[in-house]
Amino acid sequence: MEEIVLHEVGMRDGLQMEPQAVPLETKIRWLDALMHSGIDIIQVGSFVHPVKVPQMADTDRLFEHYRGTGRKPVGVTLSALVLNERGLERAHACGVELLCMGVSASETHSRKNTGMSIAEATDRILSMARTGLDSGMKVQVSVQSAFGCGFEGPVPAETVLRIAARFVEAGLVHISLADTAGHAVPEQVESMFQEVMKLDPKVACACHLHDTFGLGLVNCLAARRVGVRCFETAVAGLGGCPFTKVAGGNVCTEDFVHYLQRTGQCVEVDLNGLIGVARDMAGFFGRELPGRVYKTGPIAYRADMRQL
Amino acid sequence: MEEIVLHEVGMRDGLQMEPQAVPLETKIRWLDALMHSGIDIIQVGSFVHPVKVPQMADTDRLFEHYRGTGRKPVGVTLSALVLNERGLERAHACGVELLCMGVSASETHSRKNTGMSIAEATDRILSMARTGLDSGMKVQVSVQSAFGCGFEGPVPAETVLRIAARFVEAGLVHISLADTAGHAVPEQVESMFQEVMKLDPKVACACHLHDTFGLGLVNCLAARRVGVRCFETAVAGLGGCPFTKVAGGNVCTEDFVHYLQRTGQCVEVDLNGLIGVARDMAGFFGRELPGRVYKTGPIAYRADMRQL
Repeated sequence: MEEIVLHEVGMRDGLQMEPQAVPLETKIRWLDALMHSGIDIIQVGSFVHPVKVPQMADTDRLFEHYRGTGRKPVGVTLSALVLNERGLERAHACGVELLCMGVSASETHSRKNTGMSIAEATDRILSMARTGLDSGMKVQVSVQSAFGCGFEGPVPAETVLRIAARFVEAGLVHISLADTAGHAVPEQVESMFQEVMKLDPKVACACHLHDTFGLGLVNCLAARRVGVRCFETAVAGLGGCPFTKVAGGNVCTEDFVHYLQRTGQCVEVDLNGLIGVARDMAGFFGRELPGRVYKTGPIAYRADMRQL
Repeated sequence: MEEIVLHEVGMRDGLQMEPQAVPLETKIRWLDALMHSGIDIIQVGSFVHPVKVPQMADTDRLFEHYRGTGRKPVGVTLSALVLNERGLERAHACGVELLCMGVSASETHSRKNTGMSIAEATDRILSMARTGLDSGMKVQVSVQSAFGCGFEGPVPAETVLRIAARFVEAGLVHISLADTAGHAVPEQVESMFQEVMKLDPKVACACHLHDTFGLGLVNCLAARRVGVRCFETAVAGLGGCPFTKVAGGNVCTEDFVHYLQRTGQCVEVDLNGLIGVARDMAGFFGRELPGRVYKTGPIAYRADMRQL
């Protein structure tokens, strides 16, 4: 199998859900530790109006902190989520390396999030992606609510494929499918990624899965089975909404890495470093977070040493 | 795929871990609801010295409550765990239908649990199983710590297979592999069950998996992929030790059923009935239990209706 790419999204998809804003210096401490743990890509934050999401107001300052200062280890890529043209300008100005942007496959979710239909939102993302590429940034596009929607329920696979096909036609081959509501089952994850990868041999898929109904890791491993290489996960399993039980967190980075390392994959990642960040976060927020391995500690031997 | 058999073990493997004893009438309320939810086999308790495990002291009385009274729906099988000859006598006396008994594949675990080596414990279980069969009970034998041990770490697959082979030679073909410590990874689950099933075409495997490191459902689905039909799970994900984070609970029955039903399996099971029991248990114990779906509620549509 090809090498796995870990994309840590807890600093964005996790912290944006927390009612308690995290001070800049604390974010820097967590980012430093994440960078030195061997994670490939770290999502630093999003560019969104600070009144809308105050937790992300310092995203520009965080990028400036690392830009050209030698504070970032070689080989680590910093990403950010952009939602509109203003965000795109800010991202370019502060040195974002990888732009992430997406379209929801649910009409209701799309309208609630962007005020636009799926078709309008897709046009806009294609235009933004073009601007980003022309400015020298890498771009990953995603289909949100690709496996079901909290508002609409089932999301037709055809809708997901239609959006993905438009991405591919525009030369955008780094495509993430996001299970925003956590509705995915592994059979669906396998078939959906396989169909998207069939669109073009150049397509490189990422998965962004939430653990709402306990299937986060199950779905992650299903994606892996069909050749997905890039995994967007959050340290400590951050990303659930603390106010509602239905918004489950992201798949937990260190739980996923713990599994991978037990089978001889991603052994270069510093699992204890990740566990340290998760424990620091649990202390900061003063509550138990969804991750398992930061509580139990890792198993001290590799499982693949004794397989039949 | 062949039909799934659900074996609910929360009333035994769950309640035995709880410091708070559950009154007989509460157990009966939970058992009644579990029986009417469409679960195939329900483990009522274990026969163990009441001083050792006071939570299981009323197992005989529970069996007497259901025996020949018409209180148990047709088609439901009641099982119990037996640990020694005295327990076997009690089980026979009160009308147990399915006897469960096991041997650990870890020398340390075996000696700590039974005071016997693996070889001695196997001899004893074979003799007990014979007595049970001769008395007209069904027997399921298990290999505990089959995927790793909290004391010893790795458990050689050869040890598991040696025990399983002795079961098969004695005509005991209902074999459960238990991940007592929660160390299993899905690759290992697949290979181990495949090897055990290769011992004899008559072998019917069950899995008993713990969710300590977040892989419980992942491992359950791995077992299913290679043809395991019987799943031992616990409502609400009971079975973790409330005093130590390292002893994870069983795979959660209603979370597993929720997944199954979303893909068109086990649709005859009353998921809401199971969720009701889990909520009742969480209220009784006054804490959040590991299950997910009893907190979120189920997703209201089937995922397999829209698959590619």
